[in-house]
Amino acid sequence: MAKTTVPCNFSWLSKHRSLLFGAAIILVLILCALFFLSGSRSSAARSAKSVSASDGVTSQNCSIRVDDVDLEFDPPNSTFYDDPSLSYSLNKPIQNWDEKRREWLQNHPSFAAGARDRVLLLTGSQPSPCKNSNGDHLMLRSFKNKVDYCRIHGCDVFYSNTFLHPKMRSYWAKLPLVRAAMVAHPEAEWIWWVDSDAVFTDMEFKLPLRRYNDHNLVVHGWAHLIYRKRSWVGVNAGVFMIRNCQWAMDFIQVWANMGPQSPDFKKWGRIQKATFPDKMFPESDDQSALIYLMLKEKEKWTDKIYVEGEYYFQGYWLDVVGTLDNVTASYVEIEEGVRMLRRRHAEKEAESYAALRETYLSDAGYGRGSWRRPFITHFTGCQPCNGEHNPAYKGEFCWVGMERALNFADNQVLRRYGFVHPHLQESSSVSALPFDVPA
Amino acid sequence: MAKTTVPCNFSWLSKHRSLLFGAAIILVLILCALFFLSGSRSSAARSAKSVSASDGVTSQNCSIRVDDVDLEFDPPNSTFYDDPSLSYSLNKPIQNWDEKRREWLQNHPSFAAGARDRVLLLTGSQPSPCKNSNGDHLMLRSFKNKVDYCRIHGCDVFYSNTFLHPKMRSYWAKLPLVRAAMVAHPEAEWIWWVDSDAVFTDMEFKLPLRRYNDHNLVVHGWAHLIYRKRSWVGVNAGVFMIRNCQWAMDFIQVWANMGPQSPDFKKWGRIQKATFPDKMFPESDDQSALIYLMLKEKEKWTDKIYVEGEYYFQGYWLDVVGTLDNVTASYVEIEEGVRMLRRRHAEKEAESYAALRETYLSDAGYGRGSWRRPFITHFTGCQPCNGEHNPAYKGEFCWVGMERALNFADNQVLRRYGFVHPHLQESSSVSALPFDVPA
Repeated sequence: MAKTTVPCNFSWLSKHRSLLFGAAIILVLILCALFFLSGSRSSAARSAKSVSASDGVTSQNCSIRVDDVDLEFDPPNSTFYDDPSLSYSLNKPIQNWDEKRREWLQNHPSFAAGARDRVLLLTGSQPSPCKNSNGDHLMLRSFKNKVDYCRIHGCDVFYSNTFLHPKMRSYWAKLPLVRAAMVAHPEAEWIWWVDSDAVFTDMEFKLPLRRYNDHNLVVHGWAHLIYRKRSWVGVNAGVFMIRNCQWAMDFIQVWANMGPQSPDFKKWGRIQKATFPDKMFPESDDQSALIYLMLKEKEKWTDKIYVEGEYYFQGYWLDVVGTLDNVTASYVEIEEGVRMLRRRHAEKEAESYAALRETYLSDAGYGRGSWRRPFITHFTGCQPCNGEHNPAYKGEFCWVGMERALNFADNQVLRRYGFVHPHLQESSSVSALPFDVPA
Repeated sequence: MAKTTVPCNFSWLSKHRSLLFGAAIILVLILCALFFLSGSRSSAARSAKSVSASDGVTSQNCSIRVDDVDLEFDPPNSTFYDDPSLSYSLNKPIQNWDEKRREWLQNHPSFAAGARDRVLLLTGSQPSPCKNSNGDHLMLRSFKNKVDYCRIHGCDVFYSNTFLHPKMRSYWAKLPLVRAAMVAHPEAEWIWWVDSDAVFTDMEFKLPLRRYNDHNLVVHGWAHLIYRKRSWVGVNAGVFMIRNCQWAMDFIQVWANMGPQSPDFKKWGRIQKATFPDKMFPESDDQSALIYLMLKEKEKWTDKIYVEGEYYFQGYWLDVVGTLDNVTASYVEIEEGVRMLRRRHAEKEAESYAALRETYLSDAGYGRGSWRRPFITHFTGCQPCNGEHNPAYKGEFCWVGMERALNFADNQVLRRYGFVHPHLQESSSVSALPFDVPA
């Protein structure tokens, strides 16, 4: 091939025009990348509108929002909310809920990010004052306990004090509530019902959500009690976590069909009494109904139901309350040896210190017999609101136990405010926590 | 200048090496930009650890966190928390708090973003059960009301049921709490104390934070009552917002020095009684103390105190409760004419619809005589917990009023769960809300 010679007498600019062209491309592409990436983060700036020139107060003059979900964004495109046939009630089942939720998330991208781990905690009590004289006080403290837990871990809490269905009261009241909350909170992947008599006693423990990737309902219990003993306490329905999905919509429908609003309510009571040898009372209850479905419609439901028995997803209070002093002592012993665990820090840094502490809890075990803080302590049978506790318990044991558990939990919270209850039995008394305690 | 000729028989690659070099620079710089910008956003990915191969539960197996603040991040560098002289208590003042907070935020960049608008709501009640038989029930409902407000708007809530200082009880109890919370929550710009007898009655209204850019303390009141009438009700100290800064640390110190833990407590009582002709009771109280400082140390403090009288930052219940039916009717009338306001939506979209509604409220006015929903309705003098209400009120008016206000607020929340209390006086009864109501 003949060589082609080209005269090469360029000026500097001309000589380097390729490089300059490349540099110009650099600049444009960086600007594009910056614009793209900063898109969602600028939402905080977008929502803080300019102050009105007058002293006039407008609701646009601020933003309390501190995270990156956009609370002021709802695009006009139609979603499931615009369907007149949509209902928040149990009596009108929803279809294609997975697709509807997915579409809503696509329309609200700031909520799609993080959706997988978003949990809404539901709890509540009756609309009228408790019959038990200390009942509402215990409800109040228990509610505070849940709000503390969720403030630390970033979950939302909804407290219900109404019966969404006039016939579904007491332990049945949660099903219409879960159903309504699923629709009200399409951004939440999990709805976590926690009874008002269940107390968080490990403020640091985080739900191991990945464990439940392939399941849609999590309850605490034991397979042998369900399938071999046919015990009505094979699971505890006072604490459960249900995925916000079509399976759950269908399951809740079937579950609730054994409830007091059903014309077959009395029949279900008889069937449950016949099915569970240890069920003493005649009415159909939600817990027996749940286990009944697991027994009789096993193929239909149980592959998606995780019966958690490995840790205190909820722990029976009589197993737990007596261990609290020893648990405290064990944790103190660890902290005496690990300076970082004694380090004061902001409440918002709690998860960081929880992760560090976890590295020292590998021998603690979980559940019964362990020295790990019990995740949730459940005062089943205590009935703090109406006071009609299981006659096998002395009422006083219940209230004393609840107070101890609440203060045990409160100490984990108060610590980051610089204080502690020196005695678990004395709610009124706190002391300032010295620096570097318990060194 | 002699021309330099260079043999130009290049291959394509050789000919375009400058451009290729430029392209390589593009790639590197884009990668750097992406890495830098995604630094804080990748924290969500970082905190979701891989699932353990065994069924073993570890606290690293999940992340409930859904926003972009990193709850698992606390760098080892020293902050104010590592100073042994730091105290959470009033008796040990903090210095250089602005610098300390700033440093903490610099060390926790995911919290620095959005810090300016971050509000922590504080409320609480006494540690022991209320003497008034319905007292704790009202406390519970009032707490739920605050949790509802903050769930909608993204603020954190802390409920106190201890006295952090044994002598600072009743209305004095909030000062040690605010002091401790400022230290526990360096990520919060504002600490918002809201009495347990104060109820949010406009769930959509957002604090106009920009209005207070140049101030450090916001209280509701009227300048003429403070400076001309010298009235002890010139402001209401049951609802205030204080900036998390050194000024506030100093102010709270001085304010609390008139409290029961002070050796001069009785003296301050006499001084306040002499200063405020309408103060009827002899003890030094926090509200009189606040106004006293505004009168007697005016130059020192008042340029940073915003006396908000333009909207119901807190509204006297007797001015408000009787207007609720008319307010409801006005809002219904607007919704009848505006389809978008009737549109069902997720609770998380509430702020979007609030902004739309605001465009129809330009004639509503604010505060007394307006038909706008009152922001906060404060049942001052009702004393729901101990029941020792102002004798000028019939107790029943207080409890009936509180129930109406709570249900009025609850209706704004419940709506997004598909239900409503048809009658403000009946807490127990709810009905399903039909589609497109109130068309």
